[in-house]
Amino acid sequence: MPTTRGNALIGQSGGPTCVINQSLVGIVEAAVGSEAIEGVYGALHGIKGVLEENWIDLGRESKETLEAVANTPCAALRSVRKKPTREECERALGIFKAHDIRYFFYIGGNDSAETAHILNEIAVAENYDVRLFHVPKTIDNDLRVTDHCPGYGSAAKFVAQAFMGDNQDNRSLPGIKIDVVMGRHAGWLTAASALARQHADDGPHLIYLPERSLTWEQFATDVGRVYGELGRCLVAVSEGVHGPDGELLLKSKEVDSHGNVQLSGTGALGDLMAAKVKEALGSDLRVRADTFGYLQRSFAGLSSEVDAREAREVGRKAVEIATSGDRPHGSIVLERTSDEPYVCGVGCTDLSNVARETRDMPDEYIDGHADVTEAFLRYARPLTGALPQLGRLSDFPLGG
Amino acid sequence: MPTTRGNALIGQSGGPTCVINQSLVGIVEAAVGSEAIEGVYGALHGIKGVLEENWIDLGRESKETLEAVANTPCAALRSVRKKPTREECERALGIFKAHDIRYFFYIGGNDSAETAHILNEIAVAENYDVRLFHVPKTIDNDLRVTDHCPGYGSAAKFVAQAFMGDNQDNRSLPGIKIDVVMGRHAGWLTAASALARQHADDGPHLIYLPERSLTWEQFATDVGRVYGELGRCLVAVSEGVHGPDGELLLKSKEVDSHGNVQLSGTGALGDLMAAKVKEALGSDLRVRADTFGYLQRSFAGLSSEVDAREAREVGRKAVEIATSGDRPHGSIVLERTSDEPYVCGVGCTDLSNVARETRDMPDEYIDGHADVTEAFLRYARPLTGALPQLGRLSDFPLGG
Repeated sequence: MPTTRGNALIGQSGGPTCVINQSLVGIVEAAVGSEAIEGVYGALHGIKGVLEENWIDLGRESKETLEAVANTPCAALRSVRKKPTREECERALGIFKAHDIRYFFYIGGNDSAETAHILNEIAVAENYDVRLFHVPKTIDNDLRVTDHCPGYGSAAKFVAQAFMGDNQDNRSLPGIKIDVVMGRHAGWLTAASALARQHADDGPHLIYLPERSLTWEQFATDVGRVYGELGRCLVAVSEGVHGPDGELLLKSKEVDSHGNVQLSGTGALGDLMAAKVKEALGSDLRVRADTFGYLQRSFAGLSSEVDAREAREVGRKAVEIATSGDRPHGSIVLERTSDEPYVCGVGCTDLSNVARETRDMPDEYIDGHADVTEAFLRYARPLTGALPQLGRLSDFPLGG
Repeated sequence: MPTTRGNALIGQSGGPTCVINQSLVGIVEAAVGSEAIEGVYGALHGIKGVLEENWIDLGRESKETLEAVANTPCAALRSVRKKPTREECERALGIFKAHDIRYFFYIGGNDSAETAHILNEIAVAENYDVRLFHVPKTIDNDLRVTDHCPGYGSAAKFVAQAFMGDNQDNRSLPGIKIDVVMGRHAGWLTAASALARQHADDGPHLIYLPERSLTWEQFATDVGRVYGELGRCLVAVSEGVHGPDGELLLKSKEVDSHGNVQLSGTGALGDLMAAKVKEALGSDLRVRADTFGYLQRSFAGLSSEVDAREAREVGRKAVEIATSGDRPHGSIVLERTSDEPYVCGVGCTDLSNVARETRDMPDEYIDGHADVTEAFLRYARPLTGALPQLGRLSDFPLGG
């Protein structure tokens, strides 16, 4: 397949991450340096901006601006939650033709891969030569094929450090504390709370993932057992936790155009769980709930170094593969070959392998109904990089 | 007043901070090095541990352990929310006598200063020579006399970086976002959200402090105006926000032994405010609320360097003053002499000046009913230290 020459368009979609702009800048750097690419354009607010031709010229940005943007959380091109209709995708392709767009890079999750996939089907049908590449990002870590997703390591680092601190808080002022973590279908981010443990009695003591069902009875039994043993209990729970019937423990009426229920941006699940604990175990217990919310995906100044580096690299690699002429479309994937030392390369897979479906945590990473395994910790540790090492007094008795 | 010789007892009380153990370690270091002090003991869970004689020997801890503990958030000696009765304070003094405790250092907020103050009254009445010192800590920054409180700078840094990220998030996916910040009586921590602003249109666009009253009508008007201008709106609101009648906008039934209403550890205020916005401005608006919760006071690995250094110093200084014989009791205070360059010394004031009452933000730091002044920013900037500098694309038009 010959290399094609023309303009490149870039978009960002879905929930932000702390390193999504590393991928953007990786694409821009590589595209500006590529002989196959002329103009390097950015569509504001993803597919919405594509359709409205609300584009900016990224080729004119200075290296200094790009480097500062790379280190800034959340979509610098602004984002969108929009699943285009087939008709809209056909319109988008017409716009590509009109502006000689021969390269389209869409940074996003499985929904963005699906959009790229549909655009590709139409391009093939209309015999228009455009290279369509999906560049992965999601704090949820739920994309298929790739070992992990850029954005996850930084969010996992935030969650781990939050639980480290909250475990100390819970030890200082004992009680029952429930922390709600993002991840509507898969428990990867909630599972990262386990990275916070450094001493035998450190929390989180219970980790509830969407991959396992939970009843209110089981929840009360678990919390009561831990509280009885330790006099305190720290719980990590995914916002997507559900009952044996598959129904969410908390339902909200608001859904986006992908059919996703609104789970974040509300403290309702945490408050409901706190109320259930008091109902079952006693209303005089000190029970608190926090919902980490958007801080997990946007907190400034706390990205994982490995994550930032890989996010940049998947952007660069997308341009390299797209301009090589090896394949007309694809989704960039990370391919790990070793945990320790951590070795991870970059590859590419077909859009159809990543589009639509997501990836849950495998059974080997889940221990019982409320914990993760050592295998998961081996998987996750290299992605956050080194975490703070916390100290503890020896509690020497008097007169020793 | 002659220097007295005997044992020292240390306690930590109230809500944790990220640097409260710096003060603990500062006290231990100085006490171990002091000729006037023999045993250096820690009471677990503050005054509760004092009364139960649940003490540990801090003099035997290694330098390595102490240094690791200093860098660990939340009370290493564990904390308590307990206001002792006069009878309990009398019992505590009896225990001091029995163990030859001649120095008592209580790390905490205004309630802890009050406990030390009552203990001092009893000691004077009973003619027992014990040096009683309050070492300040609180993320609320609401202690009197001192320029600022150890613990505030780190919490302010967390809040600023959280708002920096959330402002990017809100710009990526526009909507109305409400973030609830700790501080039940004073708005210092909520005000720190303003440190996040780097561009003219950066949020928070509205900052609601407990020092000013708010009606639901005013709230809806404000949010509607900002949303109309920018197409988005980021709101910082103190958990202690209240109406013109002085009543909290949200009431909870749970109170602690100091009469404090439970405001943290629940997402209810944020959710209520989000509902009020939808009610007033339209149910189809994208409105989200996050409550930062305990992360503000406990997040691991993100303390302010200035804050950590000062927290250590107030601990050391407490021992220095206590053993100098200059005064039988006191509360350590920070005394700033310059904002730029930042110069701040350590002094001491009478316990009665700090006990019980708190300090609100002065009028000169508050701009109108929903913002802070440049004078506040000058005050706050040195306390967090340098914050991340975020980048933004220039949005160059095509064909320029």
